Amino acid sequence: MPPEFDTLIENGIVITVNRTFDVLESGRVCIQNGRIACVEAAADRPRPAAAEVIDADGGIIMPGLVNTHTHAAMTLFRGLADDLPLDIWLREHVFPAEGRFINAANVEIGTTLACAEMLLAGTTTFCDGYFYEDAVAQAVDRVKMRAVLGQGVIDMPAPGVPDPAENIRRAEAFVQKWRGASPLISSAVFCHSPYTCSPHTLAAAKEAAHQNGVLFQIHAAETRREARRLPTGPGVSPLRFLDDLGVMDDRTLLVHAVWLEEGDIDLIRRRAAAVSHNPESNMKLAAGVAPVNRLLTAGVPVGLGTDGCASNNDLDLFKEMDTAAKLHKVTHLDPTVMDAATVLKMATIDGARAIGLSPFIGSIEVGKEADIVVLKSRQPHLTPMYHPVSQIVYAAGGGDVRDVMIAGRVVVRNRRLTTIDGRDVMQRARDLSRTIRTFKK
Amino acid sequence: MPPEFDTLIENGIVITVNRTFDVLESGRVCIQNGRIACVEAAADRPRPAAAEVIDADGGIIMPGLVNTHTHAAMTLFRGLADDLPLDIWLREHVFPAEGRFINAANVEIGTTLACAEMLLAGTTTFCDGYFYEDAVAQAVDRVKMRAVLGQGVIDMPAPGVPDPAENIRRAEAFVQKWRGASPLISSAVFCHSPYTCSPHTLAAAKEAAHQNGVLFQIHAAETRREARRLPTGPGVSPLRFLDDLGVMDDRTLLVHAVWLEEGDIDLIRRRAAAVSHNPESNMKLAAGVAPVNRLLTAGVPVGLGTDGCASNNDLDLFKEMDTAAKLHKVTHLDPTVMDAATVLKMATIDGARAIGLSPFIGSIEVGKEADIVVLKSRQPHLTPMYHPVSQIVYAAGGGDVRDVMIAGRVVVRNRRLTTIDGRDVMQRARDLSRTIRTFKK
Repeated sequence: MPPEFDTLIENGIVITVNRTFDVLESGRVCIQNGRIACVEAAADRPRPAAAEVIDADGGIIMPGLVNTHTHAAMTLFRGLADDLPLDIWLREHVFPAEGRFINAANVEIGTTLACAEMLLAGTTTFCDGYFYEDAVAQAVDRVKMRAVLGQGVIDMPAPGVPDPAENIRRAEAFVQKWRGASPLISSAVFCHSPYTCSPHTLAAAKEAAHQNGVLFQIHAAETRREARRLPTGPGVSPLRFLDDLGVMDDRTLLVHAVWLEEGDIDLIRRRAAAVSHNPESNMKLAAGVAPVNRLLTAGVPVGLGTDGCASNNDLDLFKEMDTAAKLHKVTHLDPTVMDAATVLKMATIDGARAIGLSPFIGSIEVGKEADIVVLKSRQPHLTPMYHPVSQIVYAAGGGDVRDVMIAGRVVVRNRRLTTIDGRDVMQRARDLSRTIRTFKK
Repeated sequence: MPPEFDTLIENGIVITVNRTFDVLESGRVCIQNGRIACVEAAADRPRPAAAEVIDADGGIIMPGLVNTHTHAAMTLFRGLADDLPLDIWLREHVFPAEGRFINAANVEIGTTLACAEMLLAGTTTFCDGYFYEDAVAQAVDRVKMRAVLGQGVIDMPAPGVPDPAENIRRAEAFVQKWRGASPLISSAVFCHSPYTCSPHTLAAAKEAAHQNGVLFQIHAAETRREARRLPTGPGVSPLRFLDDLGVMDDRTLLVHAVWLEEGDIDLIRRRAAAVSHNPESNMKLAAGVAPVNRLLTAGVPVGLGTDGCASNNDLDLFKEMDTAAKLHKVTHLDPTVMDAATVLKMATIDGARAIGLSPFIGSIEVGKEADIVVLKSRQPHLTPMYHPVSQIVYAAGGGDVRDVMIAGRVVVRNRRLTTIDGRDVMQRARDLSRTIRTFKK
């Protein structure tokens, strides 16, 4: 008789992040054909037979984390320039480095490095926007990670798209090439921002996303000065500007949403748009603090994101959760704001909702894809453990991830990547960084 | 011929944190009799002979971190209660748990657990204030960690000091018992706060510290409401109140210093007092954001601290550095505030200065104590590496620490504690936490 399940993860505290936020103190999760087939307390019934059994060793079994905003390939520029005024950082460092070094081969290296980092820190899904996104998709496909990938649209010469007149056609070609090409990859359109794209481009890019039934991502209301840079001038908020162009709907992901004016939150709610909250990037670039508490109160789906490595400088969603919880408490001078469960939901089910994947991922529930992380809890900084959700948000880090499974496949086992050679990609990134460093000088 | 040095750490990037902030791209550090005997580029001369050679494998060699404020034994209450209003947190959770479970035996367990956590995260020195501090000192002495330890003084019945009339005598007895008892331990007086100690107690506790030539630590200006709780009423700032009692001088460590009024920073500067900045605790308890940038500009020594695990919830100074840098950037809406080097100094040499140990620790310089950390940099999230100081502050975590040396003794080797059994202390803390958890219910 064949075993009942492909895999069994047992002997751990299961944090389901389901509707009732159930926590099973001694639980197990069964996986069959890449999906979750049971979630139960060990005491419920005898252990079923499985081809493979993963012993969580008393650790935490939780949904894989969802990073709702990255520019994955920018790992190549991690720490290249910090602590600078935004304009100088962009114009003298980021844009020149991108212009010189962003090509398909290098995007593949940077993206693979990002995937290695994210997997080792418990992220199983990410939502990316960049250029040469086809190279991103190829890298992600090899690594066997889950992702929503958007080819960049911007009204200036960009890596791989020297003629801006081509930008929407190229984005659409990417969407169509990758639609259905891999069960783990969804394609999307990534419009850079309301101030780097013309009204015509914004509307046409959204129309392309709409026609193809995919997510439309856009940086919006990131800095205080953004409204002044729009054709409508300072009287109209970036979100009202976007809404007037027909860009805001339930397949729109607004990234940052820091400087929201009177009525903006209600507008986002009415349009059923979603928000990607990137607290560490907003802090490091000194953009500001997004009104996340009010967005959540209004019922807007808000996911967490790290942004790219040039402005964070890592892709660790555990650190991002900790920072998010603490930042909003101190901003409101209220320690009850953004409790641990709320933050964990932002990094899992709410993030999945924000990028349109909540029917499939974001929680440990029967029928969902088996995107699961096992945390090693027998460590001094995670001892003792009164409330595992508190431990996840306030004490754990990406380095505490032991095993990672995506769609039932083990992609990290005992902190080792199984689908790629981590040393090889690090070596390639290091080799490349020697040239990038020289260019800077 | 005997080898020239006891130990050689080589093949790493040496971040000295000396006066000129020298970084040696391929450097070595020699150690003899517990002290640093050379700091040099590998190219300077052939490798000298040493009894032991530690190969940093291209990683970062940096000063051990200095945590200027902890209540180490409170690891026992990590995550016991979060996301609550301050009053409820203190009165319904922390104080009752302390009243019931803080005794010498449990303080020894909690402190040893804290030391294990701190060592594995690269902290070599900490400044502690708690009760049963004699048990803290015994634990620290066994672990062979460096610490400044202060017995608590508070005008209410406290663990181990049921009669407040005894509090100063007990603190003084602790200071005298441990003065010179261990080369790694300095004793101190820890006065809880201006609102939990009478003016008489504050002055007498400072006088005891002064007479014994030791550091006087005190929580001050942590919350906005603190001034209203002082005998002088809301018109006088907590710092002015303390200064009028003669408490402020160059052996005074003001912990938190969040709500500073007009003239307070100049007062701190004139008195040559120091500040312990605890950003994550201040954020999590929603106390506020300390004006660290202005304190630094005024030349006040500011060190970083984690505070206790009930309000953080970990003791990782790498995370604390990252948070400190980002918090002040966003608070000032200026990304140039609190650059990476400034923050690293706060966690090393400036922290050492704040607790009176900068002649001995806080940098890698010939003649100083050999308190040194080796970071493992061959990891995706630390790749590539353009600026090692940026990497330390913005991308590394405590889990990246590979080896730790204190006064020339290796206390962590390849992420294993050498002076204590980490599993044993975790087991004892877990056993105890079962009782603590039951008591709560």
